[in-house]
Amino acid sequence: MASPVCIVGGTGALGYGLALRLGLAGTPVTIGSRDSDRARQAAQRASAQVPNASFGGAQNAEAVAGCELVILSVPFRSQSETLTNLKHALTPDQLVIDATVPLAAAVSGKATRLLGVWQGSAAEQAQEMVPDGVHVVSAFHTVSAALLTDLDHTLDEDVLICGDHKADKDRVIELVDRIDGLRPVNAGALEMARIVEGLTPLIISINVRNKVRAGIRITGLDG
Amino acid sequence: MASPVCIVGGTGALGYGLALRLGLAGTPVTIGSRDSDRARQAAQRASAQVPNASFGGAQNAEAVAGCELVILSVPFRSQSETLTNLKHALTPDQLVIDATVPLAAAVSGKATRLLGVWQGSAAEQAQEMVPDGVHVVSAFHTVSAALLTDLDHTLDEDVLICGDHKADKDRVIELVDRIDGLRPVNAGALEMARIVEGLTPLIISINVRNKVRAGIRITGLDG
Repeated sequence: MASPVCIVGGTGALGYGLALRLGLAGTPVTIGSRDSDRARQAAQRASAQVPNASFGGAQNAEAVAGCELVILSVPFRSQSETLTNLKHALTPDQLVIDATVPLAAAVSGKATRLLGVWQGSAAEQAQEMVPDGVHVVSAFHTVSAALLTDLDHTLDEDVLICGDHKADKDRVIELVDRIDGLRPVNAGALEMARIVEGLTPLIISINVRNKVRAGIRITGLDG
Repeated sequence: MASPVCIVGGTGALGYGLALRLGLAGTPVTIGSRDSDRARQAAQRASAQVPNASFGGAQNAEAVAGCELVILSVPFRSQSETLTNLKHALTPDQLVIDATVPLAAAVSGKATRLLGVWQGSAAEQAQEMVPDGVHVVSAFHTVSAALLTDLDHTLDEDVLICGDHKADKDRVIELVDRIDGLRPVNAGALEMARIVEGLTPLIISINVRNKVRAGIRITGLDG
């Protein structure tokens, strides 16, 4: 059986969609939330949608226990507080996969605009905030939460992965490969998250102009 | 016959590749350069590669005359000087299509990093610098110069277009549609160039890690 994955902020749209798809792929998922009741309710809902999968729900700091891979999928305005609360819960054997996007919407700005983050990106802020020895990889910024959650939709797009250690990215590549229709792409060092996080507002802009739910595909990688 | 296009900086890799592909599509192209001899030599080379096409070469400020569409394809370090030199050459009936990328390589930094531009992006800097009434649209940041120039290569990727006026973007969409294998995508307002210009260093990073010549495709737009 695949090792369990925790999704911190798994009651949110993107986190819940990832939970469903990973459950479908046979991965046990623990949904984390600030509120343990909401986490358990989301796990029940997910179990109803994907009956053969294993979903649990718990308060974030408890949810991460025993999970080698921790996906951080919270609104930017909650990222710092969430990581502070996980300070004593995360250990160096765990890999944090940050999916946070510093949308200007966090401060009532436009969802097509990005905030400047002192560290360069939300992922680099996460790397600064996790306990010593814990590594952060950046991923899952371009996949539509709605399309992940719509299990009738056949996914066919890429997930760009940024990180400073190849071994870490290999673990995330293996995770992404579990989900049908998603192709992992090594996009370089963690600092490239400054650009990849911008793909979310770009896609939102493309969605608005073209009335679609867009994603990203990198050409030239096949063959 | 299609209206002629001028490529300022058309002796550079990207500009020359665009010249070849537009020539192949039956569009008369004037290659502009700081040096009129180099411009004429590039036009001769292009004529040899695409014999049925019409290529001219001239110093930048002369090259733009009579061209409704002016593609600006110069290194970021030359963008400001080039636009200053075009101050009295551009008129409001002309549309400037900016392909400049503020790579940190301009100041001997990494090609996977972007410089901060005061106006937000190279395209917005161009919009500030062109004469009153001239509009700027941003495009052509994600297409490999090498693949454009290799006429045996079948293109199959997207060109993201940012601009503040739909009518301007429609003109660029029509231009991109002339080139086989390129699909134009309306990516929103000119300010989105802040993100789209970042796709060049992102693609360079992906190229390095994966030993490819990558491009971008937006999923979800078909059907």
